[in-house]
Amino acid sequence: MRTLIIDCIEKIGETVEISGFIQTRRDHGKIVFLDVSDRSGMIQVVITGEKAEDVHSQDVVSITGKVQKRPENLVNKNISTGEIELSAEKLEVLSKAVELPFDMGAKDLDLQLPTLLDFRPLTLRHPKIKQIFKVQAAILEGFRKAATDLDCTEIVVPTIAASSTEGGAEVFKIDYYEHKAFLTQSPQLYKQMLVPVFERVFVVTKAYRAEPSVTTRHLSEITQLDCEIGFIEFPELLDMLEEVAVKTIKFAEEKCEDALKEFGVENVLFGKIPRLSVKEAQDVILKEFDRDNRKEKDLTPQDEIDICKWAREKHSSDFVTITHFPTSAKPFYTKPDPKDPEYSLSYDLLFRGVEVLSGSQRINDHSQLLESLKSRGMDPKNFEMYLQAFKYGMPPEGGFSFGLERLTMHLLKLSNVREASLFPRDMERVDIRLNQK
Amino acid sequence: MRTLIIDCIEKIGETVEISGFIQTRRDHGKIVFLDVSDRSGMIQVVITGEKAEDVHSQDVVSITGKVQKRPENLVNKNISTGEIELSAEKLEVLSKAVELPFDMGAKDLDLQLPTLLDFRPLTLRHPKIKQIFKVQAAILEGFRKAATDLDCTEIVVPTIAASSTEGGAEVFKIDYYEHKAFLTQSPQLYKQMLVPVFERVFVVTKAYRAEPSVTTRHLSEITQLDCEIGFIEFPELLDMLEEVAVKTIKFAEEKCEDALKEFGVENVLFGKIPRLSVKEAQDVILKEFDRDNRKEKDLTPQDEIDICKWAREKHSSDFVTITHFPTSAKPFYTKPDPKDPEYSLSYDLLFRGVEVLSGSQRINDHSQLLESLKSRGMDPKNFEMYLQAFKYGMPPEGGFSFGLERLTMHLLKLSNVREASLFPRDMERVDIRLNQK
Repeated sequence: MRTLIIDCIEKIGETVEISGFIQTRRDHGKIVFLDVSDRSGMIQVVITGEKAEDVHSQDVVSITGKVQKRPENLVNKNISTGEIELSAEKLEVLSKAVELPFDMGAKDLDLQLPTLLDFRPLTLRHPKIKQIFKVQAAILEGFRKAATDLDCTEIVVPTIAASSTEGGAEVFKIDYYEHKAFLTQSPQLYKQMLVPVFERVFVVTKAYRAEPSVTTRHLSEITQLDCEIGFIEFPELLDMLEEVAVKTIKFAEEKCEDALKEFGVENVLFGKIPRLSVKEAQDVILKEFDRDNRKEKDLTPQDEIDICKWAREKHSSDFVTITHFPTSAKPFYTKPDPKDPEYSLSYDLLFRGVEVLSGSQRINDHSQLLESLKSRGMDPKNFEMYLQAFKYGMPPEGGFSFGLERLTMHLLKLSNVREASLFPRDMERVDIRLNQK
Repeated sequence: MRTLIIDCIEKIGETVEISGFIQTRRDHGKIVFLDVSDRSGMIQVVITGEKAEDVHSQDVVSITGKVQKRPENLVNKNISTGEIELSAEKLEVLSKAVELPFDMGAKDLDLQLPTLLDFRPLTLRHPKIKQIFKVQAAILEGFRKAATDLDCTEIVVPTIAASSTEGGAEVFKIDYYEHKAFLTQSPQLYKQMLVPVFERVFVVTKAYRAEPSVTTRHLSEITQLDCEIGFIEFPELLDMLEEVAVKTIKFAEEKCEDALKEFGVENVLFGKIPRLSVKEAQDVILKEFDRDNRKEKDLTPQDEIDICKWAREKHSSDFVTITHFPTSAKPFYTKPDPKDPEYSLSYDLLFRGVEVLSGSQRINDHSQLLESLKSRGMDPKNFEMYLQAFKYGMPPEGGFSFGLERLTMHLLKLSNVREASLFPRDMERVDIRLNQK
């Protein structure tokens, strides 16, 4: 009968059987120390050299032994099982690992990105790397909780579409029986169609971008966390997106406190989030940072960093909401500001210097939507089903969208978004490296 | 300030503003009755003909009026707001719907499937159809809860792969930059690679099958609910799959009691689930139904129906677990039964006459896995990264998988799986019908 490692704490003096992976092996003369981990934790095993012959990191073992208190001076305060150890009587190898291509025992796995990805099934086992995806799972859970608090219904939307979602060339083509089809660039059109059905919806789904470049921030396949809300106007929508963002990140931070500490990430500041239009933000940049970018239509990357610095110092907030981007720079469904149609009822949420969420109030009037499509040179015939939703009545509505991998990356301050994807896809790799022609 | 319809129950005598969709309109001389719905419920609105001129089903409206108790003899016990009505003072149209192509007011939307799908953004708004997807959302939530109870970590796996997952020709090809790639047929290989990382994982993800036929049970894009569990042997795995299935369906049944009633579905029977090997099931079929199919390698569709009938009558269970399918009929990663390798440690869970879940104990030994691939004429080179996971140590493990749409279909006894997908994909349709060549 297997005992989970964490439960050994309550079994001092008892004989138990644990199962798990050997993480590290340290030989001290005739005695060997093994760190063994299972899903619940890690324990130090003390074993004679002959019982542990040949076993090494990543071997899968089952060990029977007695749980003992460690001497006071050998207690390890960094792990929850640091006061105990297992004195092994029997060790059985359930699955033997071949020799490892690099050391998995160090606190940080110091590898170049290509190697990290070439050996993904192995490198993901490293305790620190594993934590990244514990945080990612917590972000998912936190987001669903926050969306459910808003009374959103979860929906499942397709990823195969007959035309490209939002225009643009960066779509993947599929051989769809005898026809052409595309992978969706976002769940946007589908979540909007479902507003008249459920009023408020959320979805966790895939989005695909055939970006023909390799950057530290882009993946070909990402996970989007989306909300879409009916019967809403702009200011209330801003309340909601901020609420969902804050709840999601708070949840992950609380659930994964240890992981965030391990990555050396300071606590997120949740002061009231300042809201500024692009123009207002540019005024702050001029006043506080002495750069006059008021002729730019958007914030520069340095502006984004600085406005977040300002928000952190002046508002104790790691977030800033930037609104009113130029209409021409936003997708066709974005609602222009009726007071100044050159600018739109759109927003980005910045988090520690970068955008992690964006969204907008949408055009809900059928004829205005047709106009908007046509003015961008897009053919309404490609949006036949989407447009139906507006023909048959659409309330005022809006929504927003996070990228899961990018949010994970910035919460943990990783340097490349590929580190925040279990199996990242880009133009150079689909698991293994693609042969260059 | 908007009041949700459900909250009107507590506001008798007060003037409120509601917003929602007109569902039905009934003219009685100078008085018009409107059924108006929002995400919280439906209310009857009484209004003069002149104030409600031209408004009809699917118009989006905002109505100000006084909440009144209905006379005793006009109470509608079928809806939670059946004791009240709204006496309208002002009606504002927020979005006008064009004339509808069919009546949306009947209890059942009596349309042929092609029409149901041609007008999907409209037909999904029908109260009964909407319920299907409330049940689907509950299945998702129930599954995640059940998997979390088992201590599974949620993972995100890719849907673009370099080779076809499990062999077979029914895969969709993608133009992936200058290379060829495929849409995954299941998350199988990825979830297995993550067992050494998290030990127990779950995933909700897309799976794609380019099935070149149109049946009532197949879609080209489906949603899979998967678990994969490490450090486990066959009998315990059977306990877990049954636990997850029962918890998932119980959760949906309890959360969506009204919806299941509306679809006329009797309560699910949760008696102890009988477990039979294919051979044992065939013996029951012979004994109880007088059909000798003992020479068949699998149960026939009629066998599945009858064995479920037997389970319901003799075991008060709407489920039956069938085990030990022929090894040759199962994918390469399925573990043969060491006692009789012609048969495998595999299982299907039948629910009310059809399979809704399948899975198996997996081969966790690297060399046995290589043999299995080769014996099926598959090239290990196409599974390079997957095989790494076994080279570096893999515990005994197994898992299982539901199809979300099929489970929704059978729980509600729908006649076609397309009814259980918001936007179904098949060889004839991607939203709109594909032009036949």
